[in-house]
Amino acid sequence: MKHCNLNLLCLFFFFLSSIAFGQDYYKTERQTWLSKANELKPQLTEMIKHPSRLVHTVEDKTSFQGWKAVDSAPMDSLYKNAFTKDRAVIIDFGEHLTGYFSFTLAPLMQTPDAPVRFKLTFGEVPSEVSVPFDPYKGSLSRAWLQDEVVTAMDVPSTITITRRLAFRYVKIEMISQSVAFDFKITDMSCKSVTSASAFPEALSAGTEPMIKKIDQVGLKTLQECMQTVYEDGPKRDRRLWIGDLYLESLANSYSFKNYNLTKRCLYLLAGLSDQNGYLIATVFENPEPHPQTGTHLMDYSFLYNVALKEYFNVTNDIETVNSLWPVAKRQLDIIYAYLQPNGLMNYDKANKEWWLFFDWKEGLHKEAALQGLTIYTLKQTYELARIVNKQGEVKDLPLLIDKMTQAARKYLYDKNKNLFESGPQKQISYASQIWMILGDVLSTKESRKCLNEIIHMKGAFYPGSPYLYHYYIQALINSGMNEEARKTIQNYWGGMVTRGADTFWEVYDPNNEFLSPYNFYPINSYCHAWSCTPVYFIRKYPEIFQTDRKH
Amino acid sequence: MKHCNLNLLCLFFFFLSSIAFGQDYYKTERQTWLSKANELKPQLTEMIKHPSRLVHTVEDKTSFQGWKAVDSAPMDSLYKNAFTKDRAVIIDFGEHLTGYFSFTLAPLMQTPDAPVRFKLTFGEVPSEVSVPFDPYKGSLSRAWLQDEVVTAMDVPSTITITRRLAFRYVKIEMISQSVAFDFKITDMSCKSVTSASAFPEALSAGTEPMIKKIDQVGLKTLQECMQTVYEDGPKRDRRLWIGDLYLESLANSYSFKNYNLTKRCLYLLAGLSDQNGYLIATVFENPEPHPQTGTHLMDYSFLYNVALKEYFNVTNDIETVNSLWPVAKRQLDIIYAYLQPNGLMNYDKANKEWWLFFDWKEGLHKEAALQGLTIYTLKQTYELARIVNKQGEVKDLPLLIDKMTQAARKYLYDKNKNLFESGPQKQISYASQIWMILGDVLSTKESRKCLNEIIHMKGAFYPGSPYLYHYYIQALINSGMNEEARKTIQNYWGGMVTRGADTFWEVYDPNNEFLSPYNFYPINSYCHAWSCTPVYFIRKYPEIFQTDRKH
Repeated sequence: MKHCNLNLLCLFFFFLSSIAFGQDYYKTERQTWLSKANELKPQLTEMIKHPSRLVHTVEDKTSFQGWKAVDSAPMDSLYKNAFTKDRAVIIDFGEHLTGYFSFTLAPLMQTPDAPVRFKLTFGEVPSEVSVPFDPYKGSLSRAWLQDEVVTAMDVPSTITITRRLAFRYVKIEMISQSVAFDFKITDMSCKSVTSASAFPEALSAGTEPMIKKIDQVGLKTLQECMQTVYEDGPKRDRRLWIGDLYLESLANSYSFKNYNLTKRCLYLLAGLSDQNGYLIATVFENPEPHPQTGTHLMDYSFLYNVALKEYFNVTNDIETVNSLWPVAKRQLDIIYAYLQPNGLMNYDKANKEWWLFFDWKEGLHKEAALQGLTIYTLKQTYELARIVNKQGEVKDLPLLIDKMTQAARKYLYDKNKNLFESGPQKQISYASQIWMILGDVLSTKESRKCLNEIIHMKGAFYPGSPYLYHYYIQALINSGMNEEARKTIQNYWGGMVTRGADTFWEVYDPNNEFLSPYNFYPINSYCHAWSCTPVYFIRKYPEIFQTDRKH
Repeated sequence: MKHCNLNLLCLFFFFLSSIAFGQDYYKTERQTWLSKANELKPQLTEMIKHPSRLVHTVEDKTSFQGWKAVDSAPMDSLYKNAFTKDRAVIIDFGEHLTGYFSFTLAPLMQTPDAPVRFKLTFGEVPSEVSVPFDPYKGSLSRAWLQDEVVTAMDVPSTITITRRLAFRYVKIEMISQSVAFDFKITDMSCKSVTSASAFPEALSAGTEPMIKKIDQVGLKTLQECMQTVYEDGPKRDRRLWIGDLYLESLANSYSFKNYNLTKRCLYLLAGLSDQNGYLIATVFENPEPHPQTGTHLMDYSFLYNVALKEYFNVTNDIETVNSLWPVAKRQLDIIYAYLQPNGLMNYDKANKEWWLFFDWKEGLHKEAALQGLTIYTLKQTYELARIVNKQGEVKDLPLLIDKMTQAARKYLYDKNKNLFESGPQKQISYASQIWMILGDVLSTKESRKCLNEIIHMKGAFYPGSPYLYHYYIQALINSGMNEEARKTIQNYWGGMVTRGADTFWEVYDPNNEFLSPYNFYPINSYCHAWSCTPVYFIRKYPEIFQTDRKH
């Protein structure tokens, strides 16, 4: 996920209110939260990994994005022979890695008398080491693409790329050399890093084979994204977003169980909230922790409360919830600011002043989804209040939930169609149904009808990213449609596995493998946090995924 | 200076004799020498330097190599404004530097959310930051050219180029950036390094103004080349060659007086000589000291003895000369191997089996120069024997010197022309006259005649590099032609100063500024050790360079 175009109006609003307050909403608490976050910074587990084979990539229409890596020669053929001018090799590490790449050069014939220069290109998927990056047409910084030019001033020497990389494949191209000597590459390695080092429990023997594979790929995805924060993706953008945190923490709770990482991220986001107490959707760790000022995502702010509640559910860490309760409570004020007398959120105003994300889906109308999510958030936050025994501070919530639920049914639900509609064009989208169902606006029976309706409907706005697919699966399960949930995981995430995924992708549309929100598919992240959640479903609801399950 | 094409015959010869001996000529001494060299490794003096101005380079036929750096904007205009996409600036540090370049990035508008990438090009002279390097046609590794691509993963951050650089100008080109933020470059610096940190004495007030300038440029050249060894050039090849060591140590003795550096280099070369005891012309320091195996230059091997003698002259360090005497003595065996009964060196055989350098000059015939240098070497080595009281070990030298001198006069000297000739085409070159004069083959009167003859001769092979110009100046002074020596320094090195040299160049032919032994003039070294020797002449013979000198 990537920043929005800055909403200047929104910035101005925050700027004004910050002046109006003239002080920090949280006063002394902020420093406590940042200190907590800092104390919880994990020591990363390092492992030295070596490549498994040499490959070349060939065009192949049946392969993902049209490129296939095939065996070229044994590793020894690289390690024992001269690496001469104009030579290029592609090395396959056999798995996705996040870390620091090194290679060692040794003289072979004559004494090296000049520097040598290489271009190295790192790819998570074969296309990244196959298609030219330039002329670059993408909308994000070209520098995210992992190609680096390095000069080795001496041979022998070991070169380490200082940039942390995310890759499985490395293309090494010799771009300048002295004719007076030959050298060879004698070793290559990657010091991989992660804060997920526990071994998750094995799935039961009766789990569907494809589900086992999906679980493995999901675990690897999560592991790669778990660094000193929950990153969205280790290749890009390599930072903490509330939306990714929520999904990663769910998966983590059922696998690596590094609860301190969740705790750290919750504190960090609180500590870096704006002067008005509103969360900022994404924060950076370096050189000092700081927020992406002005990046306010309404849906992500709401999901912080949900993440906090889920954190408590698995840890019973009442101290943290007590400490962070003021943040959760403050986010409710966003709802009050946009709530209309009729019980609907003022979508047009919210959409002008905030970034409403929900999904990567061009043209998606988000009014109904926002209404559903808001109700869901109110309910989850009320749960949170009960946990810390602060219902008195939010005593109007039950009535508000009721009012907003009624408004949702009255203004956005078409009873005849069994579907929610959004916007003046009455757009029918998965997003709308999903969030209304998660908000319990429909009964289980109605939910089932609704979902069955949209599943069989042509032209409905289907999810654009694994992110919304997660909420779809949850909506299916909540509606008792376990078989449909299983099938969707099997088809959607299983589709990625079948297409060769080592880790799950940021963007996957089975109808268009070249889809990119950034106008250049190689800059997509191919190991992306928000895609890891089959781990959560498979491990939380194991009964759904057994070969001998009940239909 | 750069390696020869490998003479395979010569390699084979050394290989065979190495097997024949089956052991190391120097046995235990080698380790002692290497340890000594290691103990003497200097701590470099570091200084932080900042740029002085922003420039752009413009084509200008009257400027050196057709490029001129002119003021563009004050430094603050860089430090205070956004460094946006497609921007390129050239920074002028105002002096030649050898060291490590850093620059600091700071956010300006919005929060940086992506890496930024730069191409940096470092130049000793304006042409290097002005002409395209590609497609590259040079004969040396393209990687010597100092252009580096760097990715700054975070803003703010300080980026340091790990490669040690030699430059005055830096071109910074933005090659990728996120459109979501602006940043500025807030600082730039170079941590310069040298082992020449003493302050040489000021020249007397009566010194010619241009000579003062030449001295300054020469001192700077020497300072930049003095690192943990006497390097040939800090940009390229950055290593110890015997020929450069000799000239640098001369200049050092009259300026920075870092005698330990000379001592270290003499020990290092001895310790890295081949198994047969013969010196290797160039050695590397990293990762461990090692020679460029097979690179035997006969003239450089001979000059080692001269350098050792000169080292004693200024230090009286008898211990070092005693320790290294076996090396000097062993080099004489090269002479015996090529000496013919008639007293001439067997040039054809030597030329087949060795690299005879003498100068960068296409087509130069080196027989007469070799004869002259050999005689010179014998004399200098006999001096060395006297110093350590080992005349008994080389008691045949006086007779041999006499015999070779007679042979030189008989077979190579044309009395009528007052000139030495070389080879079947009777080539007349400065190199031949110079080395015969330095070998004292002619009387002072004859030398003067000889030099006057060649100076006024059209079509004589004139020196191709500052390296041979050094010996030319010494030959003029030895012949009592001080005024001609002064004029030549004033014209040749002064020519470089007039053309804007901050440091003296590896190659300078006033008739062709684009001359390059490597087929691409930007890869020439523009701060080159062997060009620094005006420092030696100006300071050793100050009377020659006074405005009120006697003509």
